[in-house]
Amino acid sequence: MFSYTLQTTTGAARAGVFQTPHGPLLTPVFAPVGTQASVKAVEPRELDELGVSLALANTYHLYIRPGDALVRDLGGIHRFMAWNGPMLTDSGGFQVFSLGELRKVDVDGVTFRSHLDGSTHRFTPEKSIQIQHNLGADIIMCFDECPPPLDRDIVRQATERTHAWARRSGEEHERSGDSNRQALFGIVQGGIFPDIRAESAAILASLDLPGYAVGGLAVGESKTQMLGTLEQTVPLLPENKPRYLMGVGSPEDLVNCVARGIDIFDCVLPTRLARHGSALTRHGRLNLRNTRYATDSGPIEDGCTCYTCRTFTRAYLRHLIVAREILANQLLSLHNLHLLLTIMREMRVAILDGTFPAYAERFLATYPGKEIHSSPVV
Amino acid sequence: MFSYTLQTTTGAARAGVFQTPHGPLLTPVFAPVGTQASVKAVEPRELDELGVSLALANTYHLYIRPGDALVRDLGGIHRFMAWNGPMLTDSGGFQVFSLGELRKVDVDGVTFRSHLDGSTHRFTPEKSIQIQHNLGADIIMCFDECPPPLDRDIVRQATERTHAWARRSGEEHERSGDSNRQALFGIVQGGIFPDIRAESAAILASLDLPGYAVGGLAVGESKTQMLGTLEQTVPLLPENKPRYLMGVGSPEDLVNCVARGIDIFDCVLPTRLARHGSALTRHGRLNLRNTRYATDSGPIEDGCTCYTCRTFTRAYLRHLIVAREILANQLLSLHNLHLLLTIMREMRVAILDGTFPAYAERFLATYPGKEIHSSPVV
Repeated sequence: MFSYTLQTTTGAARAGVFQTPHGPLLTPVFAPVGTQASVKAVEPRELDELGVSLALANTYHLYIRPGDALVRDLGGIHRFMAWNGPMLTDSGGFQVFSLGELRKVDVDGVTFRSHLDGSTHRFTPEKSIQIQHNLGADIIMCFDECPPPLDRDIVRQATERTHAWARRSGEEHERSGDSNRQALFGIVQGGIFPDIRAESAAILASLDLPGYAVGGLAVGESKTQMLGTLEQTVPLLPENKPRYLMGVGSPEDLVNCVARGIDIFDCVLPTRLARHGSALTRHGRLNLRNTRYATDSGPIEDGCTCYTCRTFTRAYLRHLIVAREILANQLLSLHNLHLLLTIMREMRVAILDGTFPAYAERFLATYPGKEIHSSPVV
Repeated sequence: MFSYTLQTTTGAARAGVFQTPHGPLLTPVFAPVGTQASVKAVEPRELDELGVSLALANTYHLYIRPGDALVRDLGGIHRFMAWNGPMLTDSGGFQVFSLGELRKVDVDGVTFRSHLDGSTHRFTPEKSIQIQHNLGADIIMCFDECPPPLDRDIVRQATERTHAWARRSGEEHERSGDSNRQALFGIVQGGIFPDIRAESAAILASLDLPGYAVGGLAVGESKTQMLGTLEQTVPLLPENKPRYLMGVGSPEDLVNCVARGIDIFDCVLPTRLARHGSALTRHGRLNLRNTRYATDSGPIEDGCTCYTCRTFTRAYLRHLIVAREILANQLLSLHNLHLLLTIMREMRVAILDGTFPAYAERFLATYPGKEIHSSPVV
């Protein structure tokens, strides 16, 4: 269980297979996000239809509501949300640190207030792992501190804390978990500082975990800094373990980061854009709310084989968006997920065929540059 | 085209087939409502899967947004919303009269202000028919005035106006429409007054339209008054034409009204209840927001074969509702529509088998009485 087989590489790009109790992940792979145990506006059978193989849920949100013990009592996250494929939960750390003034960090953990009712709670590495045991995802994450990436002193302190917490996460998983049922991934921190990243990669690699994430990116640095950090950090990760870049999912970033050796991605982008009336295409984003689409009888994207593009015009989709019909969310989510999943499959095939560099070059040549971190909806 | 074949009767209940350019309606039949050219939160392919055979859209809403000329230019309502089965549009009259102080009625028509931007518009019988021609539904409705049903003077005046408007609707359809492509149905008014209903039925029958609706019910009268009016009015309608009861759709009302000879129904109830977190069952409504369902691992309704009941627990659905996940709307809409469509199919089979009285008695014996008009969400 949880073995990773590296099938082939093209430059830094890798194609592989990661075995989980709920089936194999064919990497590189993109995971839609089901924050509250639902990929927003998409039915689980539609995730199947789209070819989704990994779905993510958020530990903080499910701990707050409906509670991880309830999910456990109802048979775990897979049965709860009726998703029978591989699942991943984050540690809750990133979400808790995002609470800003509602949280306070110390050496042992983080005390925070619920965004729902202001009640006080505390996460420690042990608590995070226990919650993730209750949820029961196939891949669980070490509790980490994700600092703003550009301040060296803050990054150093957070990274040292992350290492201590990774050890404690591993010990808790060993003590109360089942490593045949749940794989604990480590998270490398270090901001944009090569020496701290290198130290973090080395310390985490020494824990011999079944997979590694590169954390603390896509949180405020430039794209050049993000890609530079990946180029420097990824080669320091164990080659025989999957590599996960958290929170990244625009088409151009997926291509750029697969080219730098990332195997697993997750991002709310495709479903969040859908709720804002935006469609992803191979030539950039369309704001379908725009008047120019009011009479447009074409599909979102010519040649796209998703249900939405096979069935509906831009004019109809614009009408649904303007009229605030829920169906707009559904249909745009299907399209946006379809595009990202298709791009991932194309990249995997290209890596296996040895044609990935040409694929990536062609894709990026026609994709308009866009700093996803400057977008208000990311 | 538009021929109605009466297959069999059991008491007043009828089973028949109404041919339309987009396929046959096997009656009795229930039509989900797609007010703005979308059955809320349900994909057209899911309507197919549910066995929907007739869908309704609202003339007032589509006239206001996106505009009937645009729908026409995009190929008509069927292509616009990607629903290839039979469709029905109302006349816009009921919606306009519901605007209250925003509208003013005269002998010739109604002047009103848009609920969206306050702009002034005017519907006449001719205008309503022209809009419905642009939309292109299989069944279109005469422009009528739907009065409060209990005030005799108001009802008499509105009914006389409705008759004049029915003639003008018919003339406009003859002048500028295509009766092989669109069937114009008349609407009998008369409130709860038998003599006015009888006169209205006779006058409309003399117009020899391909179908007739009983209007002005389910708008404030008691259920006893509604059913009594049906018992008196329906026998006065031509036997060889389908009979449509507008705006009715609770399980018990469907059974009671099929028993009184109604063939066609439409109602927003199943999708509106879904958005309020309520599920229809054969034993009444469940408010799934209730804490009692928080740990309930059963389906909405034992034995139900819909996707929602085959797949999800009440506990999960409650979580989705409380967490305001869009998926709750989707899954509850599917279930509620599935139940109503299943009941309609069961009634049709029972009528054909000659067992309808026993079916209706059994159904109503286990269904808790509920005045749908007293419900805040109807």
